[in-house]
Amino acid sequence: MTNEPDIQKLPVTVLGLGPMGRALAGAFSRAGHPTTVWNRSRGKADDLVAAGARWADTAAEAVRAGDLVVVSVADYDAAQSVLDTVDTADFEGRVLLNVSTSTAERSRTAAEWAAKQGVDYLDGAIMIGPNFIATPDSLVFLSGSRDAYDRHRVTFEALGGRVVHVGEDPGFAALYDMSLLDFFWTSMSGMMHSFALAEADGVKVRDFAPYLKVMLDTVALLAPDTAREIDEGAYPGGGELLTMRCSTVDDIIEAAQLRGLDTSVLRAVSSVEHRARALGHADASYTATVEGVRRPEPTD
Amino acid sequence: MTNEPDIQKLPVTVLGLGPMGRALAGAFSRAGHPTTVWNRSRGKADDLVAAGARWADTAAEAVRAGDLVVVSVADYDAAQSVLDTVDTADFEGRVLLNVSTSTAERSRTAAEWAAKQGVDYLDGAIMIGPNFIATPDSLVFLSGSRDAYDRHRVTFEALGGRVVHVGEDPGFAALYDMSLLDFFWTSMSGMMHSFALAEADGVKVRDFAPYLKVMLDTVALLAPDTAREIDEGAYPGGGELLTMRCSTVDDIIEAAQLRGLDTSVLRAVSSVEHRARALGHADASYTATVEGVRRPEPTD
Repeated sequence: MTNEPDIQKLPVTVLGLGPMGRALAGAFSRAGHPTTVWNRSRGKADDLVAAGARWADTAAEAVRAGDLVVVSVADYDAAQSVLDTVDTADFEGRVLLNVSTSTAERSRTAAEWAAKQGVDYLDGAIMIGPNFIATPDSLVFLSGSRDAYDRHRVTFEALGGRVVHVGEDPGFAALYDMSLLDFFWTSMSGMMHSFALAEADGVKVRDFAPYLKVMLDTVALLAPDTAREIDEGAYPGGGELLTMRCSTVDDIIEAAQLRGLDTSVLRAVSSVEHRARALGHADASYTATVEGVRRPEPTD
Repeated sequence: MTNEPDIQKLPVTVLGLGPMGRALAGAFSRAGHPTTVWNRSRGKADDLVAAGARWADTAAEAVRAGDLVVVSVADYDAAQSVLDTVDTADFEGRVLLNVSTSTAERSRTAAEWAAKQGVDYLDGAIMIGPNFIATPDSLVFLSGSRDAYDRHRVTFEALGGRVVHVGEDPGFAALYDMSLLDFFWTSMSGMMHSFALAEADGVKVRDFAPYLKVMLDTVALLAPDTAREIDEGAYPGGGELLTMRCSTVDDIIEAAQLRGLDTSVLRAVSSVEHRARALGHADASYTATVEGVRRPEPTD
């Protein structure tokens, strides 16, 4: 893309030069976008400026220089305190991309604020570390104004891999992020427990660990059908039934207890399944477990 | 292997002709092993006998015909009630492979019983469905007598893919099985929760589901180092620290609560992490979470 006329390379501003902000600014700059940067302390900008980025002394000056304004600071509050130093008029006609929010609710609040400034808003969730920006393994979820996304498609190509617009609801990027981390950290917790269970009887965990791959592949295999069943709200059964499931987890709980290991996660996993059964889904497919997720215990 | 002299193909007996027993007997028979089968009801043997297997009228007669005796019935109790109909003398010099146990404890009890009969014992955990027996995707864990495993290496090749001896402790096969299912069902529970969380705000789960792959790949990537740290009992930190972790999960709990979803699994996940922190591992790597698994709440 660097051989195309510069007219396609819209100017970009990056506010906040932590490791991620620096990676983003560097990627835009290297892709040929006139790139302006601002940060509370100037030192972080030195190498970017040496490589061609322009330094702005204030956030407002930086905003005026960009067509796409990327905010990459610690969190929602920090983002808002930077944006509050900029006059509403300075935002006019620009696209604001905030990668600093962490929940769907905060993203929607940020979008409402942006609407009041008359600025097109995108919320971003960056799913990879700074080192993966502008590589094929990059993954960034964007949500909010589809027009803004379309206007900056070429700009976003600078970030590499997959930059995906997941919905007009500005909260969707954060929700994708959070839902993936929900899965990830629950799985990691399961990995720790399975390692502890094997290790308790003297298994070398490094011998055991490679076989996790078989389970990971099975989860990947089951995901599309499970997703479809949830979207359709029907769990026809036929495969693994919920009734068969409950006893397996209860056996593992017993084994963990015998070895003096935590059983709280597995007991919760089991109780969600048993709740789905009690709701009349015993003969449904495992996917019906989602009904147990949707009806928490009164203590929740 | 089918072109080698028959002398290498030791005779095999399969007791119990459910779907798995039938798949095993069929695989041994097709690989050229003289195969004898027995089952409570004879009907299940018809196609196997038509394909060359020999029917035995009693379990004892079947045991006498095999060098490897595979027991494939519903559970430990059913296996023991079949084996109790066979005289001790009939077992002499044979290898008993029980694929009917479900916990490490029952496998060890079965091995003790076998030792009293003077029979070499192997316990087996079959990680795949009957359709995958004798395919490259087959996966069977064996544990117990290493000599017995070595004697029947060629026999086990009939089962395809990977037939792995995981340790002399007869409980290890069941423990590998159970520990993998521990990971699997906790991950599946995480998948259901993440789907429910995304769906609650109107995300089409089928749009979201493909991105689970990124998380699955990350879990696979982290597994070897995590395993090594547990084996070494040292969690040096440097990567993702436990302190940073706790707040992420707590954000997800808040998001789930806002949407009226179950939080019990995530709260348990979080409490295990917080417990590890409280044990002095806040600045350790995430692997230190295993210490939280090893020190359950008093209520566990």
